[in-house]
Amino acid sequence: MANKRNGSQTVKFDNPPRIISTGSIVGPKEGQGPLRLYFDEIIDDEMWGEKSWEKAESKIMRETFARILKKAARSPKDINYIIAGDLLNQCIAANYGIRESDVPFFGIFGACSTMAESMNIGAMLIDGGFADYVVCITSSHFCSAEKQFRFPLELGTQRTPTAQWTVTGSGGVLLSSDGTGPFITHATTGKIVDMGVKDANNMGAAMAPAAVDTLIAHFRDTGFLPEDYDLIVTGDLGYVGKNICQELMMKHGYDLSERYNDCGVMIYDLKKQDAHAGGSGCGCSATVLAGYIYEEINKGNLNNVLFVATGALFSPTSVQQGESIPAIAHAIRIQRIL
Amino acid sequence: MANKRNGSQTVKFDNPPRIISTGSIVGPKEGQGPLRLYFDEIIDDEMWGEKSWEKAESKIMRETFARILKKAARSPKDINYIIAGDLLNQCIAANYGIRESDVPFFGIFGACSTMAESMNIGAMLIDGGFADYVVCITSSHFCSAEKQFRFPLELGTQRTPTAQWTVTGSGGVLLSSDGTGPFITHATTGKIVDMGVKDANNMGAAMAPAAVDTLIAHFRDTGFLPEDYDLIVTGDLGYVGKNICQELMMKHGYDLSERYNDCGVMIYDLKKQDAHAGGSGCGCSATVLAGYIYEEINKGNLNNVLFVATGALFSPTSVQQGESIPAIAHAIRIQRIL
Repeated sequence: MANKRNGSQTVKFDNPPRIISTGSIVGPKEGQGPLRLYFDEIIDDEMWGEKSWEKAESKIMRETFARILKKAARSPKDINYIIAGDLLNQCIAANYGIRESDVPFFGIFGACSTMAESMNIGAMLIDGGFADYVVCITSSHFCSAEKQFRFPLELGTQRTPTAQWTVTGSGGVLLSSDGTGPFITHATTGKIVDMGVKDANNMGAAMAPAAVDTLIAHFRDTGFLPEDYDLIVTGDLGYVGKNICQELMMKHGYDLSERYNDCGVMIYDLKKQDAHAGGSGCGCSATVLAGYIYEEINKGNLNNVLFVATGALFSPTSVQQGESIPAIAHAIRIQRIL
Repeated sequence: MANKRNGSQTVKFDNPPRIISTGSIVGPKEGQGPLRLYFDEIIDDEMWGEKSWEKAESKIMRETFARILKKAARSPKDINYIIAGDLLNQCIAANYGIRESDVPFFGIFGACSTMAESMNIGAMLIDGGFADYVVCITSSHFCSAEKQFRFPLELGTQRTPTAQWTVTGSGGVLLSSDGTGPFITHATTGKIVDMGVKDANNMGAAMAPAAVDTLIAHFRDTGFLPEDYDLIVTGDLGYVGKNICQELMMKHGYDLSERYNDCGVMIYDLKKQDAHAGGSGCGCSATVLAGYIYEEINKGNLNNVLFVATGALFSPTSVQQGESIPAIAHAIRIQRIL
């Protein structure tokens, strides 16, 4: 049967939803990085007045949600759905961060692909006529993530050169069937890709093949070429994964060239800031999208952006049991004017 | 603006998607319960030939997915989206269980509400014209869940009377825009509800208010009354939560009466099987829906079913930090013939 996907992985929207507002709050390290002027708020310390890193992460998401609504002059009762997730076990940053909102809620888990996953689903709910306003939001926190996925910070464990630095921050968008802002014209939904990488300190290498799989699907399904974009931006491959992605794409005949960048590379000054292979975490691509990319589109400096958030779908348990790291990437095409 | 929700929490589908196939595989304890004849397969032991409980859970989901497709004579390439999640940290049962499928994938987390959450989203993707075939699937496993959420099984810890028994099993459905099977006519999406319950061994009490909130929203939004249903079935409140739900509904003027039941009460013989307050886990409502409910609808013994899966959105970390347990419930109305 015919549907809006025509048998492909990509949906082309009949009535492209608009991104009418965004919000971004980041931690102190991100606030010293090259994108610092694009974020709504920079918090002074990782605890932000809370008693635990997990509670701080929930607060960051809660306050980011409030900012998204405030900038659009909307209240929670205007919002039809919130779609949210994060990296913590059982997604507690989102569940506790959103619990007072009184808005119908879909929790999702896509690891660091969460921002694009939520926008994939959110755009379909709007184009399908099920909603007029959907908030898509996610977060991560360096301290809560390190504690959960790797080592307690207090150990002072040496990090490998390929290790990435989990971004402390929350970013989100308000999608709408109406209003002012750039359009989401296409959504490409990724498949799980596992190329056998087992090193949890080299997530860029694990995730790059998933990004490539989704990029190729997007170009194949839509007929677009890399040069149709001002910016093709992956989620958080870091510089190791970014180079792998670029090389693999070249082997498949796609020259991403200088229009390609990665949120994990962009968010820190990798020469001056001690962030090893670059940023990671759901909050990385979410804050770069909600901050830098959204503002540059609205200024007219970017017209067509392909946003490809990437996620490593592992847990410490799966790695301890000798499993490799499955990954996934979802893509959203953002267009300034139709 | 107008949409298919008319400002409510409930979507009424223009072209109600059909459930054209289901699959269910359960563990040995569930295979001794009163619904044993309704499941597709009962495994002999909790490891099912794997080296860990987590790997066994992934295998159960993988095999359940295969059964869903086989019964509908479909192959993975026919499936437009899989929507899946589970209880394990970072949803590894689903991520590893589905990784070879080569199907666009949305990972979700709704704790034990996952089955209804996935069907909420899946039905919208089909009615919205984005997909013709969507598999919604989830799982849980007694051993992996106890280890992660409470105590290692080897400790032989005494369980409280209000504790529930996590179902070992996976259940799923194939939703389609065409074919033969009952219809999903309405989907009510829940809000997060937190009434301050802090006892992780009394999830029924934590989740009952969320079920009530969604039930009331459903009746308010649709104009249906309890007597319009043959069966109103909550996900896994167990007998403690079921009684609370029934009493709270009565206070709100809704007599659920004998047409109300709970999957956690139905799946075990609570007099003969040592399951304390009843079953729980994503696999509880999923296998009861995919097994018993689906078969009884197809036999014509049930005509209108309101399926309300309930989830407790906590983690061991949040409980250790003194947090209460937020909960959520999503509802699906299933109708045999339109």
